[in-house]
Amino acid sequence: MAVHLLSQLAHVELVTPKLDDSARFFTEILGLQESGRDGRSVYLRCWGERFHHSIQLTEGPQAALGHVGWRSDGPDGLVEAVSRLEAAGAGEGWFEGSVGHGPSYRYRGPGGALQEVFWEVERWSAPAHLESAYPSRPQRFGARGCGLRQIDHVTVSATADPLAAAYWYRDTLGYRFMEYTVLEDGVCFFAMLTTNEHAHDLGLLRDASETPGRMHHVAFWLDEPAHLYRAADVLLETGAQIEYGPSRHGMGEEVFCYTRDPSGMRIELMSGGRRNYEPDWDTVRWTPAQGSIDFYRNSSPPESILEIFPAEPDDSTQGFVDTNPWEISTVS
Amino acid sequence: MAVHLLSQLAHVELVTPKLDDSARFFTEILGLQESGRDGRSVYLRCWGERFHHSIQLTEGPQAALGHVGWRSDGPDGLVEAVSRLEAAGAGEGWFEGSVGHGPSYRYRGPGGALQEVFWEVERWSAPAHLESAYPSRPQRFGARGCGLRQIDHVTVSATADPLAAAYWYRDTLGYRFMEYTVLEDGVCFFAMLTTNEHAHDLGLLRDASETPGRMHHVAFWLDEPAHLYRAADVLLETGAQIEYGPSRHGMGEEVFCYTRDPSGMRIELMSGGRRNYEPDWDTVRWTPAQGSIDFYRNSSPPESILEIFPAEPDDSTQGFVDTNPWEISTVS
Amino acid sequence: MAVHLLSQLAHVELVTPKLDDSARFFTEILGLQESGRDGRSVYLRCWGERFHHSIQLTEGPQAALGHVGWRSDGPDGLVEAVSRLEAAGAGEGWFEGSVGHGPSYRYRGPGGALQEVFWEVERWSAPAHLESAYPSRPQRFGARGCGLRQIDHVTVSATADPLAAAYWYRDTLGYRFMEYTVLEDGVCFFAMLTTNEHAHDLGLLRDASETPGRMHHVAFWLDEPAHLYRAADVLLETGAQIEYGPSRHGMGEEVFCYTRDPSGMRIELMSGGRRNYEPDWDTVRWTPAQGSIDFYRNSSPPESILEIFPAEPDDSTQGFVDTNPWEISTVS
Amino acid sequence: MAVHLLSQLAHVELVTPKLDDSARFFTEILGLQESGRDGRSVYLRCWGERFHHSIQLTEGPQAALGHVGWRSDGPDGLVEAVSRLEAAGAGEGWFEGSVGHGPSYRYRGPGGALQEVFWEVERWSAPAHLESAYPSRPQRFGARGCGLRQIDHVTVSATADPLAAAYWYRDTLGYRFMEYTVLEDGVCFFAMLTTNEHAHDLGLLRDASETPGRMHHVAFWLDEPAHLYRAADVLLETGAQIEYGPSRHGMGEEVFCYTRDPSGMRIELMSGGRRNYEPDWDTVRWTPAQGSIDFYRNSSPPESILEIFPAEPDDSTQGFVDTNPWEISTVS
Repeated sequence: MAVHLLSQLAHVELVTPKLDDSARFFTEILGLQESGRDGRSVYLRCWGERFHHSIQLTEGPQAALGHVGWRSDGPDGLVEAVSRLEAAGAGEGWFEGSVGHGPSYRYRGPGGALQEVFWEVERWSAPAHLESAYPSRPQRFGARGCGLRQIDHVTVSATADPLAAAYWYRDTLGYRFMEYTVLEDGVCFFAMLTTNEHAHDLGLLRDASETPGRMHHVAFWLDEPAHLYRAADVLLETGAQIEYGPSRHGMGEEVFCYTRDPSGMRIELMSGGRRNYEPDWDTVRWTPAQGSIDFYRNSSPPESILEIFPAEPDDSTQGFVDTNPWEISTVS
Repeated sequence: MAVHLLSQLAHVELVTPKLDDSARFFTEILGLQESGRDGRSVYLRCWGERFHHSIQLTEGPQAALGHVGWRSDGPDGLVEAVSRLEAAGAGEGWFEGSVGHGPSYRYRGPGGALQEVFWEVERWSAPAHLESAYPSRPQRFGARGCGLRQIDHVTVSATADPLAAAYWYRDTLGYRFMEYTVLEDGVCFFAMLTTNEHAHDLGLLRDASETPGRMHHVAFWLDEPAHLYRAADVLLETGAQIEYGPSRHGMGEEVFCYTRDPSGMRIELMSGGRRNYEPDWDTVRWTPAQGSIDFYRNSSPPESILEIFPAEPDDSTQGFVDTNPWEISTVS
Repeated sequence: MAVHLLSQLAHVELVTPKLDDSARFFTEILGLQESGRDGRSVYLRCWGERFHHSIQLTEGPQAALGHVGWRSDGPDGLVEAVSRLEAAGAGEGWFEGSVGHGPSYRYRGPGGALQEVFWEVERWSAPAHLESAYPSRPQRFGARGCGLRQIDHVTVSATADPLAAAYWYRDTLGYRFMEYTVLEDGVCFFAMLTTNEHAHDLGLLRDASETPGRMHHVAFWLDEPAHLYRAADVLLETGAQIEYGPSRHGMGEEVFCYTRDPSGMRIELMSGGRRNYEPDWDTVRWTPAQGSIDFYRNSSPPESILEIFPAEPDDSTQGFVDTNPWEISTVS
Repeated sequence: MAVHLLSQLAHVELVTPKLDDSARFFTEILGLQESGRDGRSVYLRCWGERFHHSIQLTEGPQAALGHVGWRSDGPDGLVEAVSRLEAAGAGEGWFEGSVGHGPSYRYRGPGGALQEVFWEVERWSAPAHLESAYPSRPQRFGARGCGLRQIDHVTVSATADPLAAAYWYRDTLGYRFMEYTVLEDGVCFFAMLTTNEHAHDLGLLRDASETPGRMHHVAFWLDEPAHLYRAADVLLETGAQIEYGPSRHGMGEEVFCYTRDPSGMRIELMSGGRRNYEPDWDTVRWTPAQGSIDFYRNSSPPESILEIFPAEPDDSTQGFVDTNPWEISTVS
């Protein structure tokens, strides 16, 4: 049977130079709940999430990735994942004492993003005033701000060859490699992998810079597209910038918009999209002209969409791509 | 009490050099019903419309406006409108023998768009196979293609001074003047007027060309934003281009997308938006930077959005504006 | 031309024995803004409304209608409306000193609902922290609770013959009489009239009781159906009961749900629906079996939907109808 | 790691006494594509599906389940599933020569529903006129009728003890057991299991009758709730009955409506709902009063919702439950 080592993306640690501002943005504007504070970190979760947290904000010098946490598919999945990571020489060893989950094994994939895999997890229990009328909900519907329901995916930098990185993740940890996009010269600059039914929970971006472990964005899910458009209105009216969107991705078919938290980190809000269950899915190859990023193929994302965090001060192309691959030159 | 001479936009005649192709686009892709043919014209209506037609396609040398038809607010409204048009020196006299409505009085407002006003109208009666289960619907829900429900507005050229044109329409025919947009030098290039609760049924565009009576687009309504996004999918998958959108206008707050019929004429699909009932509404002044055309202020419409029909072959700026007023220069 | 005396439903005064609880429900759950307090009254408005208030909550012994306020269609509309009301013997004289609007003329239509008509109105001005990024919005998007956008309609009791009452409103004040529903014996028990494009802003209900001036519900508008379903989730999760719905009315085609404020008063939330602009609309006759209240014709509203306020303690049928006209006896 | 023997629900065979009428209903009203005919069977698929078919209609004496087809999670999953089914004494042997997939192993779970598991599957290839503009779609967006995107789940009868049946499916084939509902006396009458992220692809219903292998309904997915409501309008306007809904299930949180095909078989249309990825999910116990079937808890499903196919002529309770467990007795 197919390899199932990971059950889901569990959390992302974001480094922010403005911890309080970022925490306020995540709670008041995006609608997350604070579930803990610990030294220089604030832990947050969406109303639809059952684990202790999906976001850890940690104070630091600049907007950056702290680490990505994956939950294994059972205790055996953890054992097997560690065995494979060690065999691949990617392991950094066991890490104990995390807030909200049990022992984790830390590793770095191609491109250097720090990640961890764990099995034991602490479930969040709603205080009385947040209990839902529904026995299956971890807390009542979160009507504050954008009302994000759950974390969806993270996109990290993955060397100058994300295609090779995608094969590494597929072969080492059992992700399904769903879709990728190539430049006109055939070079892959974006790849999407998934542990489950949706289009991706791990995005890999071309990054030819010398800086390892950078990230592009973290994404959250809303129940239906109308909630995404409503959230865009919330963002605008509270003064948050929408960097790009709302529009619809060709890859994955989700509606989306990108905003920035006070640290400058890119946050994607999204909904809709394809559900797929085929272990033998044939990876789909896209060109930007087919609408990979914008299903409607009639507008260009801003140049700022090329920024990866932390930024490289002296390199405007950020090591990603030399020119905006999604630029629409003509609408004839 | 406030002046109510017109009750609604009733129909728009579009000239097309590809009559059969245009008729097929309107029926199979946009989802209208053909309700008659007459010499060089095909008459069409949306599933939610009660009149004989809202679109008249007429064969001609190039994509252009034929005329715009307004229904008066009762027989007295017609008498008063004619009296005012004659006093304004804008009248062209009575016209009999139209298909689908009674005698109409024809006139040209500033900019030269040919229009008519009439009261008597022929109601469309559904054949048995199109009857609705609901006594209030003129026909059953139209599930074909984009499934447009009803005509919404038309935007025509209105001299180099659309502000003056807007005052003319307000003072002569009783439209409410709702919103307008100015360039950086304060020159108005777009104005919206309405006979009813929604943001506009008459749009006026700056046109400094020598060609009178040009038009920019005709727009149709869908019941809810989700139907607009679904219609965009229909357009893409049938090979129709989406020129701009889906996105959301600041002015009027509607979601929209623009496509082109086979003649090249611009068609807007739209939904949502503000409802307003104030006879003493204070006209709102917008700048493009406030999001007049794109509520999200992070993408630029294509240059082609400046095209007015019929095109002026030797004048790339089309007499409209010298540069794209909605160009987003920076997303900071 | 058609008679336009009234431009819109402006406000409804609700009597509540639990003023503070009701005010909290309207602000925290339904999402309205408090715009003033005055003796025993709290004034409230929705985020999309430009007038001082659309709801006045007034302390009193039981849930009941205070009065309904209509804005005239210009100052001339007010003069003509007063003249007609006096001629009809329905007037109660001028009333000065209202909060939020100028002099009003008070009257009672068939069934005894206290109403007023006025022209001068106070616009609400947003404090800095509520200003919108959009020049056309009276305040920023209201993301709190259900986020209701604006008042839509009110349904009041109208004698044992609402058909006659509908004719009275049509002939005296120029409403368009849009739709009505009859029992199996042909007796009308519900009629809808409108001053504008939507299905109704005045509903008239059969009431054979001895108590004049009762009401059934007041309704608020949301921008799109998805917002209505989201609001239903907000209601459920905050412990508010949904009396009936979400479902879709056949009459008007709106999606809806009914809840109750802490006084027991019925509040309708709604969205979607037909827009119509025909001065000569042929009033549509419905039977319950055609789906007048429930477009889907497969469930029955609860008996409580028959309650009119204030209740008649000894009369379980409330003077309305003897049996639930919308009861679905069989689904074959 | 967790057991993953099955990757997805692949198809359901429905027996119908009206093959042509049923085929027409599935294609013209529900919007499926016919992908083959073979003797007494018609094969159909939704526009979003990549396999040869998801529905097989087979002529027979009365509306009934033919069989349910599950795709294994890789070839090893098939081997392991067969081994477990044989050990459980549930196997009926290998079946060759199916249209659209390779060799399948047939079995019957508790309650007797005939099922099969297979790995090799034939992908459907779009003819030129149905090719999508998007490389990831098996065919262009299906805008005909209800436009169903893909099969979602099937609910079958499972003895008088669906709780025991649920444990059997969990332990034998690795389903996650997500939620179940109990009567007031604590007896379970409905259980939901899943092979993936959504609420269920296998529903088990109490059935104390002597007839094995009956079914309650098969369900299809639409991309977003607004598409479900639109589909309900399509159903109504084409004369198809909506048995129950649109409303929202508490269990799974999906919006839904039930209709019937010309054979009388129940078809569910659904969208929205929870996504969950936890291998160690704690099965949730519901009571009807918590809103298990109707999130809004204010209306009763019709008695007909108790019908299981094929019907037992002399037993009005159908062996399911004695009284409607979802009956709302009072709305206080």
